[in-house]
Amino acid sequence: MKDGNKQAPSKQSEKEALGLSVKKSQDFSEWYTQLVLKAELADYASGKGFMVLRPYGFEIWEQIKSFFDSKIKKTGHKNAYFPTLIPESLLKKEAEHFEGFTPEVFWVTRSGTQELSEKYAVRPTSETIIHDSMSKWIRSWRDLPMLLNVWNSVLRAEIKSTKPFLRSSEFLWQEGHTSHATEKEAEKEVMDILLTYRQVMHELLSIPVLIGKKTEKEKFVGAVYTTTLEAMMPDGKAVQMGTSHHLGQNFSKQFEIRFLGEDSELHFVWQTSWGISWRLVGALVMMHGDDKGLVLPPRVAPIQVAIIPIIFSSTKSGDVLAKCRQVEAELSDSGLRVFLDSRENYTPGWKFNEWELKGVPLRIEIGPRDLANLTSVFVRRDSGNKETIPLSKIAETAKQKLDEIQTFLFASAKKRLDEEISEVNSYSELKEKMEKGGFAKSGWCGSSECEIKVKEETGSDIRLIPFDEIPEEGSKCMVCGRNATQIAYFARAY
Amino acid sequence: MKDGNKQAPSKQSEKEALGLSVKKSQDFSEWYTQLVLKAELADYASGKGFMVLRPYGFEIWEQIKSFFDSKIKKTGHKNAYFPTLIPESLLKKEAEHFEGFTPEVFWVTRSGTQELSEKYAVRPTSETIIHDSMSKWIRSWRDLPMLLNVWNSVLRAEIKSTKPFLRSSEFLWQEGHTSHATEKEAEKEVMDILLTYRQVMHELLSIPVLIGKKTEKEKFVGAVYTTTLEAMMPDGKAVQMGTSHHLGQNFSKQFEIRFLGEDSELHFVWQTSWGISWRLVGALVMMHGDDKGLVLPPRVAPIQVAIIPIIFSSTKSGDVLAKCRQVEAELSDSGLRVFLDSRENYTPGWKFNEWELKGVPLRIEIGPRDLANLTSVFVRRDSGNKETIPLSKIAETAKQKLDEIQTFLFASAKKRLDEEISEVNSYSELKEKMEKGGFAKSGWCGSSECEIKVKEETGSDIRLIPFDEIPEEGSKCMVCGRNATQIAYFARAY
Repeated sequence: MKDGNKQAPSKQSEKEALGLSVKKSQDFSEWYTQLVLKAELADYASGKGFMVLRPYGFEIWEQIKSFFDSKIKKTGHKNAYFPTLIPESLLKKEAEHFEGFTPEVFWVTRSGTQELSEKYAVRPTSETIIHDSMSKWIRSWRDLPMLLNVWNSVLRAEIKSTKPFLRSSEFLWQEGHTSHATEKEAEKEVMDILLTYRQVMHELLSIPVLIGKKTEKEKFVGAVYTTTLEAMMPDGKAVQMGTSHHLGQNFSKQFEIRFLGEDSELHFVWQTSWGISWRLVGALVMMHGDDKGLVLPPRVAPIQVAIIPIIFSSTKSGDVLAKCRQVEAELSDSGLRVFLDSRENYTPGWKFNEWELKGVPLRIEIGPRDLANLTSVFVRRDSGNKETIPLSKIAETAKQKLDEIQTFLFASAKKRLDEEISEVNSYSELKEKMEKGGFAKSGWCGSSECEIKVKEETGSDIRLIPFDEIPEEGSKCMVCGRNATQIAYFARAY
Repeated sequence: MKDGNKQAPSKQSEKEALGLSVKKSQDFSEWYTQLVLKAELADYASGKGFMVLRPYGFEIWEQIKSFFDSKIKKTGHKNAYFPTLIPESLLKKEAEHFEGFTPEVFWVTRSGTQELSEKYAVRPTSETIIHDSMSKWIRSWRDLPMLLNVWNSVLRAEIKSTKPFLRSSEFLWQEGHTSHATEKEAEKEVMDILLTYRQVMHELLSIPVLIGKKTEKEKFVGAVYTTTLEAMMPDGKAVQMGTSHHLGQNFSKQFEIRFLGEDSELHFVWQTSWGISWRLVGALVMMHGDDKGLVLPPRVAPIQVAIIPIIFSSTKSGDVLAKCRQVEAELSDSGLRVFLDSRENYTPGWKFNEWELKGVPLRIEIGPRDLANLTSVFVRRDSGNKETIPLSKIAETAKQKLDEIQTFLFASAKKRLDEEISEVNSYSELKEKMEKGGFAKSGWCGSSECEIKVKEETGSDIRLIPFDEIPEEGSKCMVCGRNATQIAYFARAY
């Protein structure tokens, strides 16, 4: 591109370039990267480790955003915006937190040609700068709870190779930050948000997740505890889909965030923070995609129905196109996101490939023969099933099929998740399971030593401690053989 | 706050702190800053020149965003996201552009403890990084037009004192970037966007603007020409409300953005860029606010109607509250943004003050006497007019009043704008007008010398060259006395 000899691609080479050159089962990693790039979800940017979210990827992100944003607004959360640059002194106020982020912070040291007297961190997360403001805004119990949320990006220098959506030096996310009068309220917030996140994953993305607590070693730096949602990808590696942290009074004491209670005494507030990011888009690609491309659950799909007029140069196209436009209007009026692909210069077959690559859940084909029979052909992206549907029932059937696809994608992913969880009773079983991939569930003594040993020897972490499972009487830690105090889910992870 | 002796404010001091301590006519600048802070639109942040957009300010920004976003989506524009950090080499590709931004760029020179081999600019604007991507994505005429938009923030180090929304080191905005096959299409885009911006200002914000071209001296660095929208504030200073630039092929040649035309030849694309920022919120405050606080045009107001139950401790409150809830539901169902202020511990008078400060366009009071008479009291924020309205007509009357307020605010601002434009025929008249404030309209020879002389001697710039006015036969430049080739609008500006 940069050598000044850019060649225009021929139609043939464009066609070839459209499809994926590897199968999901052959080379999962290469399949994933090709798909992200070829479906035009994202692209690499010039800076090392940075990526661009292209319009089609952004539309998926906008669906996630709007789903979650409307839910948290209903429960009284408010959006705001805080600066990108955070003075070093603020970041240092909570020492453990600062230490945790310091290796990956981008530092601004100059403005124009001047050296700055204090350097700025490019936001790695906003706890410190938001708590600094909260210390000014919170005065009495009437100001509580303060429930803030920010849609922004954060930057953390990645030294490992970039993987779009999963590992990049900047990512889009939301970060919620709340202050409460009591510990109980803060802990309820942590859990309410966790369950709202699960709705995003289950109801919108059709991705089943396990929920639980992180270990001390894996918790957010500066938190009292961290809760998490974990999904299992088809290659046997887990993805952390979101986290919700109980901060206790760790930050409120450092930032002196106090309120006058109804008891006329000053108290430190109790706080939470929580986030989900565009890595959800990456998980969506991995979870449902196939050798032909993306498979998007209808609720999150930017385009839910693609209408393809079956016209060849020899056909009189006017009547078919007119009917397609009518169907487009009807589906659109009934609340569906629909695209009529009336582009010339592309064959129907080429269009089928493109919309399959882009994961559009339902394709409706209408040609001259359909017109004569007052029918259309429905093709489901998930199963490939074809069905002839009367034109008179097109809207109701489309809605019904989309609901079926949404449900089917979740059910089959849930079935796979259940199959991916193995109970292991010895360290050798654990090692074996980690080679195969998936979650190994077992008793754990609760010590970091055992956790670190497993990490070093198998490459897997404790992804979560479930809320609702406890070890059976007499069960043992499969690393050290001491009594198990907790159930742990181990897996390798992105 | 930071000395560890934070005192809880008494109710009395909160009450005093709520109102503004200066009048708009007395000390406009102090009035503005107090209002922004006390209405909780924004606050200062820890970093020099940085500000926080608080929830109430953010809700206004969300209204602007949603109005403009839905309009540009209808005309085929797509949102995307590009990195915050731009490698220096990219920024340098368009030399004039780079020079223009270089004094105010924040530079990232380190990540973690490592010095970077190439430094990054924290995005001052995204032309360079977006054009870098476009050079990869655009191959044939079928890829055009490419119409991208980004909602993000940009950073430009401010050395002068911070003025919330108008002068800060970081601001939220949108930046549109488009590529077209022909110059004519690009020029049409520049103008289409300019007119869409004017809709935002006229229809949503009730702020009348003048439109025209910037001079060569004032145009965007790297553009062929810049078009602008200018509003006049009550203190006699202009605010540049938005700009839309024709970039010609200046960037496409540097970034080698070429497409294969239908003629089978390679051509450089023609480009535009355009932006509006949160300074619109600042202009909104200045334009309509009064000594009691904000006055928000209904279409942009986060809360359009505040319902205040008139309850004193002696009153039986149940029936009044029940009726208020019913009215709230009715107004909300009819599509209005309504807030029932049922907070205890605050008197109705306190609530009146608060919602006046926050600029809520319409207040509805319902007390025991109203309940008996089946009426309510409507109070308009703009005029202060009170009117008794039957409960049976509450929704239709509320809608009608809100429409009236929207129209009235625009009409009175338009009248003031017209009065602020004076035709001047000599340099001394110009100087006199610049002391008084407002726009001076006059003939101009078109030379930078005269433009610079005026700037140095009066502190005013040429804000715009109107599209539709040309100098009369024989009219002169009022600086040098040569023939006028253009009409220019001069003003001091923010």
